[in-house]
Amino acid sequence: MFKGRLEAFSDGVLAIIITIMVLEIKVPHGAGFGALRPLLPVFLSYVLSFIYVGIYWNNHHLMLGSVSRVSGAVLWANSHLLFWLSLVPFATGWMGENNFAPATLAIYGFVLLMSALAYFILQNCIISANGRNSVLATAVGRDWKGKLSPVLYCVGIAASFWQPWVAGLVYVGVALLWLVPDKRISRVIE
Amino acid sequence: MFKGRLEAFSDGVLAIIITIMVLEIKVPHGAGFGALRPLLPVFLSYVLSFIYVGIYWNNHHLMLGSVSRVSGAVLWANSHLLFWLSLVPFATGWMGENNFAPATLAIYGFVLLMSALAYFILQNCIISANGRNSVLATAVGRDWKGKLSPVLYCVGIAASFWQPWVAGLVYVGVALLWLVPDKRISRVIE
Amino acid sequence: MFKGRLEAFSDGVLAIIITIMVLEIKVPHGAGFGALRPLLPVFLSYVLSFIYVGIYWNNHHLMLGSVSRVSGAVLWANSHLLFWLSLVPFATGWMGENNFAPATLAIYGFVLLMSALAYFILQNCIISANGRNSVLATAVGRDWKGKLSPVLYCVGIAASFWQPWVAGLVYVGVALLWLVPDKRISRVIE
Amino acid sequence: MFKGRLEAFSDGVLAIIITIMVLEIKVPHGAGFGALRPLLPVFLSYVLSFIYVGIYWNNHHLMLGSVSRVSGAVLWANSHLLFWLSLVPFATGWMGENNFAPATLAIYGFVLLMSALAYFILQNCIISANGRNSVLATAVGRDWKGKLSPVLYCVGIAASFWQPWVAGLVYVGVALLWLVPDKRISRVIE
Repeated sequence: MFKGRLEAFSDGVLAIIITIMVLEIKVPHGAGFGALRPLLPVFLSYVLSFIYVGIYWNNHHLMLGSVSRVSGAVLWANSHLLFWLSLVPFATGWMGENNFAPATLAIYGFVLLMSALAYFILQNCIISANGRNSVLATAVGRDWKGKLSPVLYCVGIAASFWQPWVAGLVYVGVALLWLVPDKRISRVIE
Repeated sequence: MFKGRLEAFSDGVLAIIITIMVLEIKVPHGAGFGALRPLLPVFLSYVLSFIYVGIYWNNHHLMLGSVSRVSGAVLWANSHLLFWLSLVPFATGWMGENNFAPATLAIYGFVLLMSALAYFILQNCIISANGRNSVLATAVGRDWKGKLSPVLYCVGIAASFWQPWVAGLVYVGVALLWLVPDKRISRVIE
Repeated sequence: MFKGRLEAFSDGVLAIIITIMVLEIKVPHGAGFGALRPLLPVFLSYVLSFIYVGIYWNNHHLMLGSVSRVSGAVLWANSHLLFWLSLVPFATGWMGENNFAPATLAIYGFVLLMSALAYFILQNCIISANGRNSVLATAVGRDWKGKLSPVLYCVGIAASFWQPWVAGLVYVGVALLWLVPDKRISRVIE
Repeated sequence: MFKGRLEAFSDGVLAIIITIMVLEIKVPHGAGFGALRPLLPVFLSYVLSFIYVGIYWNNHHLMLGSVSRVSGAVLWANSHLLFWLSLVPFATGWMGENNFAPATLAIYGFVLLMSALAYFILQNCIISANGRNSVLATAVGRDWKGKLSPVLYCVGIAASFWQPWVAGLVYVGVALLWLVPDKRISRVIE
């Protein structure tokens, strides 16, 4: 019962986050295709963030689908994750409107980093509420993706001021890492 | 369980898409009826897009209502559909604010085309997860509407630069095609 | 199953409608209480529309709670109702920002009128799908409120150009009419 | 059944409230870190309000999770609570954009006060519908937090005009009071 509402609330917040990001793609004043060109960086940022929020939704969904107990700590760890994800539209808009300027790339990476840490905390709260031998604990295993991603985000943040395109590449790379079909995911589904 | 959250998330995103479109109808500064006249193209675009999103919601709902298995591929095909539908408010606003200018009609048709293709992919993913003899596979049948619509959108896109009103007519026509009570729909419901 | 998603989608749309209305109360630039005074008509419009959307949600909820069958016609009648309700934030914002000018009062009344008619159509679709002897048909009875409201909205629209305050009074009056505890409601709940 | 939709609708509204607040953090025009500095008060207001809405969601969720009967009065008391909470984004934005000016702190406190009173009314409606010996009545007990909070908000409102930082401290303090793990919460969960 408690899990049901936790999922419903998270679905609501994630659905809104993913959708209000599109509001940052402001309708241009011109009527020709040329009016769309300045929107390209905003659009690309939107695509990347859409994929990231989609990945979070997918994993959140699988993680909660496999557990039975939800503690008070889980409720707050979940809100903490939603807080950082709620900053994604802002970071996306700022990065897109400033054509991937260094500071904006660094802040984008920082929001991704904090979201990844918040997800890690939530995962641990859920495992500790359900036991080391729960389905989730087994499915997560050594969790190399979850441990590698924050390191890569840090690389991206540092690279923002040195070679901005490296930062962009790192953020796209981490997204691809998670998009690639994950055996853990299919295992949990079956 | 997984299907339940997929539906809930999709409902959330579709509900928000349909509702934020109305934000493009900006409150005018004048207080007389004359102040509403410039909003007419924006309003008409809104009506058309509302019907399209309504059709997608209806069909999505019926499609998922008839299946029992949801695979990892289905999760991503669904996110892909939501991505293209999330661009409908932008395309609607641009078209409405520029009085159905050629480029805006073409982009609107392009977003409809990509949404239709994404829906087709999602349908195939669901059928392949549930088997050729599933209720959905039977209900969809030869799917002439699903196959004709992308062709018509292409006609609409091409017509945008030649006779814009033809493009508009085509987009309205495809919507009517789907609005007309569908025997498949009632069959699936019963 | 179908009813469940119809309710979820409607809840989503109504929740968003009720919440985006608050976005029309634009944050003022001044920092003193005086900066809030110009917001008073916007705020009052918001309160009235919040109550109206709340009434629609309540009644929609009770109406669907008592039925078992949902037909294709019901799905579309429901979308039709959501369409008119989705225009409430626009009408509210226009009326509030123009200090209840005649044309804005008339359009507000028109949106309420069309919503009331759409609700009436939806109710009839549901009754015809569930039978004249269904719980809903009995609970609705002769439905004097449902029949009186459109008449009162027409009075309000006409009064907008003659005595605007009468229109305002009528809109508030109809809301109170529905707010007053309804024996039908408690009967359906029990 | 009725409880289910009440929860779904409230989840939707709370999810939207928590998410649209982030729209008040407007994307700045500059591309350097310096462009973020003026956003600091807006960001801090956002964090505080996010925590408050999170607390309300958590408690709402626990309160409804423990009851079985929902009356017509509960439906309206719930809408009343959502009304005051829907004003939180406005109060947050006004306070943040004006750097915690006295009048904005007082209005913020007023919205928190009215939300707390609305929550108190809702709690009493639910208890009176479920009986003095219900799980909720026992769990709530003497409810010293629920009774102390409105008093503290009044102190905060008064302090706004005298020592604004005291008001800020009081609002943060009440949030911490509710964040501290509550034995009542774990008792209800178990």
